[in-house]
Amino acid sequence: MNTGELVELAQQLRVDSVRASAAAGSGHPTSSMSAADLMAVLLANHFRYDFDRPAHPGNDRFVLSKGHASPLLYAAYKAAGAVDDEELLTFRKLDSRLEGHPTPRKLPWVETATGSLGQGLPVGVGIALSGKRLDRSDYRVWVLCGDSELAEGSIWEAAEHAGHEHLDNLTAIVDVNRLGQRGPTRHGHDLDAYARRFQAFGWHTVEVDGHDVDAIDRAYGEAASTKGQPTAILARTLKGKGVADIEDREGLHGKPLKNADDAIEELGGVRDLRVQVQDPPAARILHAVRAGHVDLPRWDTGEEVATRDAYGQALAALGTGRGDVVALDGEVGDSTRTEYFAKEHADRYFECYIAEQQMVAAAVGLAARGWVPYAGTFAAFLTRAYDFVRMASISGAGINLVGSHAGVAIGQDGPSQMGLEDLAMMRAIHGSTVLYPCDANQTARLIAQMADLEGIRYLRTGRGESPVIYGADEEFPIGGSKVLRFSQSDRLTLVAAGVTVHEALKAAEALEQEGIRVRVVDLYSVKPVDRATLRQAAEDTGCLLTVEDHREEGGLGDAVLDAFTDGRPVPRLVRLAVRTMPGSASPEESLHAAGIDAESIAAAARLLVEQAIVP
Amino acid sequence: MNTGELVELAQQLRVDSVRASAAAGSGHPTSSMSAADLMAVLLANHFRYDFDRPAHPGNDRFVLSKGHASPLLYAAYKAAGAVDDEELLTFRKLDSRLEGHPTPRKLPWVETATGSLGQGLPVGVGIALSGKRLDRSDYRVWVLCGDSELAEGSIWEAAEHAGHEHLDNLTAIVDVNRLGQRGPTRHGHDLDAYARRFQAFGWHTVEVDGHDVDAIDRAYGEAASTKGQPTAILARTLKGKGVADIEDREGLHGKPLKNADDAIEELGGVRDLRVQVQDPPAARILHAVRAGHVDLPRWDTGEEVATRDAYGQALAALGTGRGDVVALDGEVGDSTRTEYFAKEHADRYFECYIAEQQMVAAAVGLAARGWVPYAGTFAAFLTRAYDFVRMASISGAGINLVGSHAGVAIGQDGPSQMGLEDLAMMRAIHGSTVLYPCDANQTARLIAQMADLEGIRYLRTGRGESPVIYGADEEFPIGGSKVLRFSQSDRLTLVAAGVTVHEALKAAEALEQEGIRVRVVDLYSVKPVDRATLRQAAEDTGCLLTVEDHREEGGLGDAVLDAFTDGRPVPRLVRLAVRTMPGSASPEESLHAAGIDAESIAAAARLLVEQAIVP
Repeated sequence: MNTGELVELAQQLRVDSVRASAAAGSGHPTSSMSAADLMAVLLANHFRYDFDRPAHPGNDRFVLSKGHASPLLYAAYKAAGAVDDEELLTFRKLDSRLEGHPTPRKLPWVETATGSLGQGLPVGVGIALSGKRLDRSDYRVWVLCGDSELAEGSIWEAAEHAGHEHLDNLTAIVDVNRLGQRGPTRHGHDLDAYARRFQAFGWHTVEVDGHDVDAIDRAYGEAASTKGQPTAILARTLKGKGVADIEDREGLHGKPLKNADDAIEELGGVRDLRVQVQDPPAARILHAVRAGHVDLPRWDTGEEVATRDAYGQALAALGTGRGDVVALDGEVGDSTRTEYFAKEHADRYFECYIAEQQMVAAAVGLAARGWVPYAGTFAAFLTRAYDFVRMASISGAGINLVGSHAGVAIGQDGPSQMGLEDLAMMRAIHGSTVLYPCDANQTARLIAQMADLEGIRYLRTGRGESPVIYGADEEFPIGGSKVLRFSQSDRLTLVAAGVTVHEALKAAEALEQEGIRVRVVDLYSVKPVDRATLRQAAEDTGCLLTVEDHREEGGLGDAVLDAFTDGRPVPRLVRLAVRTMPGSASPEESLHAAGIDAESIAAAARLLVEQAIVP
Repeated sequence: MNTGELVELAQQLRVDSVRASAAAGSGHPTSSMSAADLMAVLLANHFRYDFDRPAHPGNDRFVLSKGHASPLLYAAYKAAGAVDDEELLTFRKLDSRLEGHPTPRKLPWVETATGSLGQGLPVGVGIALSGKRLDRSDYRVWVLCGDSELAEGSIWEAAEHAGHEHLDNLTAIVDVNRLGQRGPTRHGHDLDAYARRFQAFGWHTVEVDGHDVDAIDRAYGEAASTKGQPTAILARTLKGKGVADIEDREGLHGKPLKNADDAIEELGGVRDLRVQVQDPPAARILHAVRAGHVDLPRWDTGEEVATRDAYGQALAALGTGRGDVVALDGEVGDSTRTEYFAKEHADRYFECYIAEQQMVAAAVGLAARGWVPYAGTFAAFLTRAYDFVRMASISGAGINLVGSHAGVAIGQDGPSQMGLEDLAMMRAIHGSTVLYPCDANQTARLIAQMADLEGIRYLRTGRGESPVIYGADEEFPIGGSKVLRFSQSDRLTLVAAGVTVHEALKAAEALEQEGIRVRVVDLYSVKPVDRATLRQAAEDTGCLLTVEDHREEGGLGDAVLDAFTDGRPVPRLVRLAVRTMPGSASPEESLHAAGIDAESIAAAARLLVEQAIVP
């Protein structure tokens, strides 16, 4: 498109942003209007995309990091012929695909859900990594950022990662409209301030008047032709651009225009320009997946193996069998054991250094391109990326997260390194799967199954060695459990997972010596839980004693309740969990101090029997 | 100390780091040895601190951001006479104060718990803000960082905040030892790479040989005399410095030395140098707290008020009555309503822009200096700072967090803005208090009480208006609840909080019309819960139907179970919660779609009656 056409197209995007927001009675028209010229030029002259084939391997990828500017995105979709005017005006209404913030669960052209600021660029880095290192396709990744969100540290994790990896297929377009939600940003229109920061992280930068379509056009060309560096285009814009009453004014963030009709008139009225978006170049198929036989490692019962070791070995084997599996780690691969994968499949391993947000975001980006990512760090440090996990679930992204060094069982390193909230955090994620194996064979089987699940999959591993108790051919269905001890005269049921399975078994043995028989259930699938087995145990024994190396809130103890919340009678529920702030000590001392070792379990069971709480 | 003495002191710190780790059989001696010269010069010649009076207002503040180098810190404490050699060798043992990673819960000289990388500098920024803007004391804040942790985005949130606020009382000392945990860092010994980044964020930088005590001495002097900017000292060091076998070698992170005795000999043997740390300058008392009468806002029953509004107004009033209350917000103060405080108490308000990690870290730093911080953003975005909340609880920090826009009740903005995991996340934090008020008077009372609690306090507010149902003089004790409807013939109990209280009341009314009487409990204190009231309700009605605008895991439904986990009979528990992925819609439509509006509650209750699940 030429200058005149681009200007017209930008005005149309503004008008449609105003109209959509007015119809909704909410939304962010002013944040859309500032970036309308940036979007118009991109769509008309640079973006290569087949809207009928969003999965086309050669398609460029666009991420709206400033997700609240969704009216602009939807207006662009309309201009590209992907949605019609009628649908545009369903914005933010019940059952509309056009949500307040865009999500791929609803729209095939959206790469990742945005709306939590500072996440679009990190996910864009993941997509660009895929293009560069895996797909080896020439698509470009364009990310439209707000200026406010550059205050998020995750943006600089992304900047560091992209700069270091020389992602010249990535362009960040920053809509520097000077105004955040409640007022001016830190740097206002000081484009140099942002340029200095991006440059320091190894980026090429271009400063531009964000309302000069020709200048924007040249900037995009410069970005596309810059080699060896990602490019940040810093565009000076005005919030609410095009309507004098609201232009560059504070207090109008996230508000539809009061006089929409007047504004539309001032913007030149409703238009119906259609953009013929450039086709993507021919590209080879996304990636040839070797979906061969997966030859999982096997351990003999009685061997002492850490579940983190089993994870690493199983993942490496999975990577050998499946070409679509990729792995990421937060610079602790020697601890998590992701290093086994890294050594065998260096081409599909992504070192994310100590930047857990970027690690999860990269996993989301890789998943968006069809890969099956496994991302590992200490369970404790996945808390760093909780907002990214939450947003990934809104995206409907299929990612595997593995948290090692769970619980007080790590011992000497102390509470900062102990994952004690991870089960609660991951269970609360919509549609998640939460797994907590207790031995090596179980870990390997679960790691392999995770690959084919939907949504967020989380598996928790331990630091210390534990005995292998299952044969290598045992099956561990998701949503299942294992009854490890059973008799007709069980007086209560111990429900455990991970390290506490071994403690529960020891306790059960000690209790049996005293004539107290107890059932032991290995609840390796914390979410979903095995309702049938728990209900049977409740019926048979009347009391479930849960034991977990986790805080008492939100973990195993709460998970068993899922089997009984449909109105049926609930058994007695007693829980042992980590109720104090642990310190440094040996693993055995730590388990004992937390009251979750065999001795504590046996004592609790004895008390229940003595107090006649159980029959 | 002169050059020779400093060199000797540094060697002593190395030797003691090696000895402590050897005695523990674990720990990070090599990461301690790289920074020993940096620590020795700081302690002997620049740090001003009275170890007998850690609360002295004029004390400099030291934060070990690379918390794993705790042997070095403890060795320094020994050199300063604060701990003796016997205690030094209890490192990482059961009940020792010298944990694997330092924490103020154990040691009075530690400002904040570290061990999750990238957190010490952000907390240091909070302390420096306190010194500059509140205490108006001349103390300096020295933060010893690792090079690996500079990959964390939170470091750059801190850099941005400190640069923008011209915190010239803050010095970051970066121990650039080139090696992370599993191998080389991104930038190795390229000090310029780090300098460029800090400079871009407005910092003064000094590059130095981190093993040249005279150069270090000059660098500290330069930092102390630099005005208008924080200083980053980038020190080139060698991991394991001083012992040829391990110096600058990969694969030795977090491992005690194999031949500790030889290493100690190579380092010149055990010494017992004592440092006379400089006294702090005379300083006025920490801060004069006006602990006057707090005149909370009052609302009449029947008024329609959003709880976020009540929070903002109550906080402003609290700030008027109490001089120790400070507030922070993540650039959404117009939404959270922290703006009311900001307008009335600009001197005690900290705008953190969109950087939730830095916001929580600043709150921790301010709390460390004796202030009572309230930090607000959307409940959804507090997930961004979960690791900081977790670490704050390990610190034993007393901070108040307020999350607005909770649940699907926000409507059109869609799931990215809906706090749906916050109750689970905050409940799982050790020692936390979790509050969820349903009306304005209740909100105000709870906000005022939070100030005097221990640990992490979280309060959840809503976006929309809701009717005031409590009088302004009603009391709402922490751990309490309110029985809003009660009869001798209640057939079940509705347990609600926040927005669902109003829905439950409507449902109860509708049910009463049909002859079904139900009890309604407002469980505003989600943690701790009111066990007595829940147990009475269980005894009287046999069934609790929980209703929450939150995921079904870890929230209200799980919280009620806390009243029944001691082995007593558990009532039937049925829960209504958000089980699907919400989209954009009106608040009413959203509550209905999630199945937690009055109609859904009444339908669930009816079903329980019809199925004879309740009597």
